[in-house]
This record gives sequence, structure tokens and C-alpha cells, in this order.
Amino acid sequence: MKLRPLYDRILVERVESEEVTKGGIILPETAKEKPQQGKIIAVGEGRRTDEGKIIPLKVKEGDLVLFGKYTGSEVKIEGIDYLVMKEDDIMGIIEP
Amino acid sequence: MKLRPLYDRILVERVESEEVTKGGIILPETAKEKPQQGKIIAVGEGRRTDEGKIIPLKVKEGDLVLFGKYTGSEVKIEGIDYLVMKEDDIMGIIEP
Amino acid sequence: MKLRPLYDRILVERVESEEVTKGGIILPETAKEKPQQGKIIAVGEGRRTDEGKIIPLKVKEGDLVLFGKYTGSEVKIEGIDYLVMKEDDIMGIIEP
Amino acid sequence: MKLRPLYDRILVERVESEEVTKGGIILPETAKEKPQQGKIIAVGEGRRTDEGKIIPLKVKEGDLVLFGKYTGSEVKIEGIDYLVMKEDDIMGIIEP
Amino acid sequence: MKLRPLYDRILVERVESEEVTKGGIILPETAKEKPQQGKIIAVGEGRRTDEGKIIPLKVKEGDLVLFGKYTGSEVKIEGIDYLVMKEDDIMGIIEP
Amino acid sequence: MKLRPLYDRILVERVESEEVTKGGIILPETAKEKPQQGKIIAVGEGRRTDEGKIIPLKVKEGDLVLFGKYTGSEVKIEGIDYLVMKEDDIMGIIEP
Amino acid sequence: MKLRPLYDRILVERVESEEVTKGGIILPETAKEKPQQGKIIAVGEGRRTDEGKIIPLKVKEGDLVLFGKYTGSEVKIEGIDYLVMKEDDIMGIIEP
Repeated sequence: MKLRPLYDRILVERVESEEVTKGGIILPETAKEKPQQGKIIAVGEGRRTDEGKIIPLKVKEGDLVLFGKYTGSEVKIEGIDYLVMKEDDIMGIIEP
Repeated sequence: MKLRPLYDRILVERVESEEVTKGGIILPETAKEKPQQGKIIAVGEGRRTDEGKIIPLKVKEGDLVLFGKYTGSEVKIEGIDYLVMKEDDIMGIIEP
Repeated sequence: MKLRPLYDRILVERVESEEVTKGGIILPETAKEKPQQGKIIAVGEGRRTDEGKIIPLKVKEGDLVLFGKYTGSEVKIEGIDYLVMKEDDIMGIIEP
Repeated sequence: MKLRPLYDRILVERVESEEVTKGGIILPETAKEKPQQGKIIAVGEGRRTDEGKIIPLKVKEGDLVLFGKYTGSEVKIEGIDYLVMKEDDIMGIIEP
Repeated sequence: MKLRPLYDRILVERVESEEVTKGGIILPETAKEKPQQGKIIAVGEGRRTDEGKIIPLKVKEGDLVLFGKYTGSEVKIEGIDYLVMKEDDIMGIIEP
Repeated sequence: MKLRPLYDRILVERVESEEVTKGGIILPETAKEKPQQGKIIAVGEGRRTDEGKIIPLKVKEGDLVLFGKYTGSEVKIEGIDYLVMKEDDIMGIIEP
Repeated sequence: MKLRPLYDRILVERVESEEVTKGGIILPETAKEKPQQGKIIAVGEGRRTDEGKIIPLKVKEGDLVLFGKYTGSEVKIEGIDYLVMKEDDIMGIIEP
């Protein structure tokens, strides 16, 4: 089973900072803070304009992204925690 | 008797998490929280743009959807509780 | 004497839940809550766009509608209580 | 001397409920509440769109109108109290 | 020296109610309230639309206008108090 | 070194009221209030519309301007205090 | 590893005031305040309009910029602190 996000929403799985830093990089300000990185699991079709046009998103499945600490709504699917947020909540894409 | 939602509103019937997980899947963060899943019972004709054009909705009757905990207005029809919300309150469609 | 609502406003007369349920259907969550059903008595010409175009409303005189508990402004005409609200406050049309 | 309202503003003179009911009709919820009826004394040229176009108003001098209790700004001209409000504050036109 | 208001701003000099009533007319609700009348001393070129078009104002230098009690920013030029406000703060033009 | 303001931002140097009044004119309501006059030191290229068009500003370097008391962000460059504000915060241009 | 900001977001590295003043110039109001200067490390592709068009940014990698004290979200990449903000948060470009 999976969740297909609507419009400009995306489904993100948090990635522990250590995992990311193994690949080399991001460390949270303080170790106690929850990581702000995640992997995109699914993306919506695109943002719907006021006139009904669909604008495809820039982020795609598999992207490692950075987002704010209090961003998104938590949801658990088959025992795994995810976040549903809008593409606009994504600050940037982490590139290796 | 039934309710025909106006424009981009939809009528949703909450689905208990257990029912969904039988089919395999979503479990709320804590068992005490109200489920955030529901089945779409009826949908409006579409979102009305500022100029009066109707943009059909992406969700349709029968879709199993995910929405925020405090989303929508409760209404009881023939003894069954429903929620009336806008399509924009739907985070995504749950697919089997 | 009557009230002709302006633009996208409508005049609604509350309908007691019992009357509706006689016809079969809607029951408020708790018996003490004020009913959220009503009959449309009069509708405005339509929503005015920013450019002055008039977009006709979807609801019409005689429709039985559902609306939120705190919706609209109360007004008494010839001893009968009415609510004046905007079409956008209507969640849906109750069909027999 | 008179006041010429600007754009979509209108000048309204409150009409005591009794006067209206003589003609047959509207009674405030409680006798102590200030009436919400009034007669339009003057109207502006029309609502100005963002692009500077003027959209004529639907209400006109002489119309008996219904408005919310706390609507408008009070002004006294030659000893008579008036309210200046926007056409959008008018709920509807009272017709005999 | 003078102030040339920008865009849809106007420079207004308060006019004491007595001066106005000599010419016949407006009296504040209570004598203690500050007058809400004023004379337009200078007007901006016009309101700038989102696309940069300039829409000329309807009010002009010399107009006697009515505005809300707490409207505008006070400024003293060569010992005289003025108010800088936007045309949209003007309720109407007082005509003799 | 200098600051080149972005888009519709401008860099303003406060001008003490006395300096202005030497040239003849503006006096703050109370002597203790901070002056609201300033000289424009640098202006941005223009306001960017939603579609990316640049609309040139009306104010220019050297203009003596009037602005609200709490307008802008303070910044010190080479020991001198400046304010960075948007053109829209300017009430008008002071002309000799 | 690096962060590629999305749309109109930019990645900024704070620059200590002393470093800037070596080159000649900006000093914070009080020495204790955090500097408001920074160097742009990476910029997004451009602002996305409502219709999906991308408007390139005016700031570019390497620009020394001025921004408000509480602007942006802090993020640490490979041990270095950065700020992610929107181009609109940038007041201006510091030029030597």
C-alpha cells in the first residue's frame, strides 16, 4: 500500500543525520534536535494554478531534501513514520 | 437521502484504522488518536475559479484518503457521522 | 415584503431537524445543538468577479442546504427568523 | 450641503424599525437592538478594479437596505446621523 | 516648501467643524471629538497597479473630504499639522 | 563601499529636523520624537511584478523624503546610520 | 556535498563584520549583535510565478549581501553554519 500525494504535496521519510553524514555531510545544530533531512518517497502531480493548470514539481522521488523543523504533518504507513508537506516547504535538494 | 457537496467540497466517511490495516496499512501514531483516513462518499462539481470556471476535482467517490486530524466540519446523516471538507484538505490518496 | 439578497448572498430559513428527518434524514450530533439545515428563500444575482462579471450561483430558491453552526447573520422579517449568508458558506445541498 | 461617497461607498440613513413595519415588515430580534435597516441617500460612482475600471453599484439612491449591526462609520450632517459603508456591507435590498 | 505625496497618498489639512458649519453643515457626533473633515492640500500622481500603470485619483487639491477618526499619519510642515493618508481612506467629498 | 538596494528597496539617511528647517520647513510634532525625514542615498532597480517585470521607482537618489517613525531596518555603513525601506514606505517627497 | 536551493531560495554564509570591515565598511549597530552580512553560496533557479514561469534571481553566488537579523533558517553543512532564506529577504548587495 502507498500514499499518492495530491497536487503539490510530497511524502517524505526522515533520514537520520548519521546516515547522511556517512555519505559525508549534514549535521544538525545540536545532536538533540530532530533531523531536518529526508528522502522523497512520492510526489504529487504538480501545483494547481488558480485556473486549473498543473505545474509539475521540481523535486522528485528519491531526492534527499532539507526542510524546516516543524514542517509537515506526520503520518505512519505500515509502521514507518512519514511527513506529508508541500513542495514549498522544501528549502533545497542535498546533492552528494 | 444524500448530501451533494458544493464546488470543491467533499463528503468523507471516517474509516477506522483497523479496517484499513486489515487491507494492510496505515496505523495512527498512537492508538488513541482519531483516525485520519476516510472514504470519499460524494464530491462537488469542482473548484470555481475567480472567473467562474469549474475545475474538476482529482479525488472521486470511493477514494480512500488521508487528511489532518482537525480537518472538516462534522455532520450526521441518517445516523452516520461524516466530515465535509475541501479537496485542498486532502493530503493524498491511499492506494492498495 | 421580501429581502432581495445582493450578489452571492442568500436568504435561508432554518429548518428544524425533526422536519427534515420526517422526510427521512439528517440528525444533529446532539439534540441540543441548533440545526444546521435550512431552506433557501432567496438568492442574489451571482458572485461579482473583480472585473465586475456576475457568476450565477449554483444554489436556488427552495434548495435544502447544509451550513456551519455559526454561519450567517440573523435577521427577522415579518416575525420569522432568517439567516443571510454567502453561497460559499453552504457545504452542500440535501437531496431527498 | 451633501456628501458624495467615493467609489463603492454609500451614505445610508438609519430607518427606525417601526417605520419599516408600518409598511409591513422587518422587526429586530430584540426591541432593544439598534435597527439594521436604512435608506440609501447617496452612492459612489462604482467599485474601482485593480486596473482602474469603475464597476457601477447595484444599489441606488432610495433603496431600503439591510446591513449588519456594526457596519459602517457614523457621521452627522446638518444634524442628521448617517452611516458611510461599502456596498459590500449591504446584505440585501428590502422590497415592499 | 511643500510635500508631494507619492502614488495614491494625499496630504490633508484638518478643518475645524465650525468652519465647515459656517458654510452650513457637518457637526461631529460629540463636540469633543476631533473633526473628521479636511481639505486636500496635495495629491499623488495616482494609484500604481501591480503592473505599474498609474490610475489617477478621483480627489483633487481643494476638495473638502470626510475621513475616519484614526486615519492617516500626522506630520507638521512649517508649523501646520497635516495628515498623510491614502485616497482609499477618504469616505467621500463634502459638497456645498 | 556602498549598498545597492534590491528591487523596490531604498537606502535612506536620516536628516535631522533642524537641518531641514534651516532650509525652511518640517518640524516634528514634539522635539523629542525622532525625525521622519531623510535623504535617499541609493535606490533599487524597481519593483518586480508577479510576472517578473521591473517597474522603475518614482523616488531617486538625492530626494528628501518623509516616512513613518517606525519604518525600515537600521543598518550602519562606515560608521553612518542608514535605513533600508521599501518605496511604499515613503509618504512623499519634500520639495523646497 | 552541497545544497541546491529551490526556486527563490538562497544559501548564505554569515560573514563576520570584522572581515567585511577589513575590506573597509559595515559595522553592526552594537558589537554584540550578530552580523547581518553574508556571502551567497548558492541560489535557486528563480522565483516561480503563479503560472509556473521561472523568474531568475538578481543575486548570484559570491554576492556579499545584507539581510535582517532574524531572517532565514539555520542549517549546518559539513560543520559550517549557513542560512537558507528567500531572495526577498535580502535588502541589498554590498559593493566594494
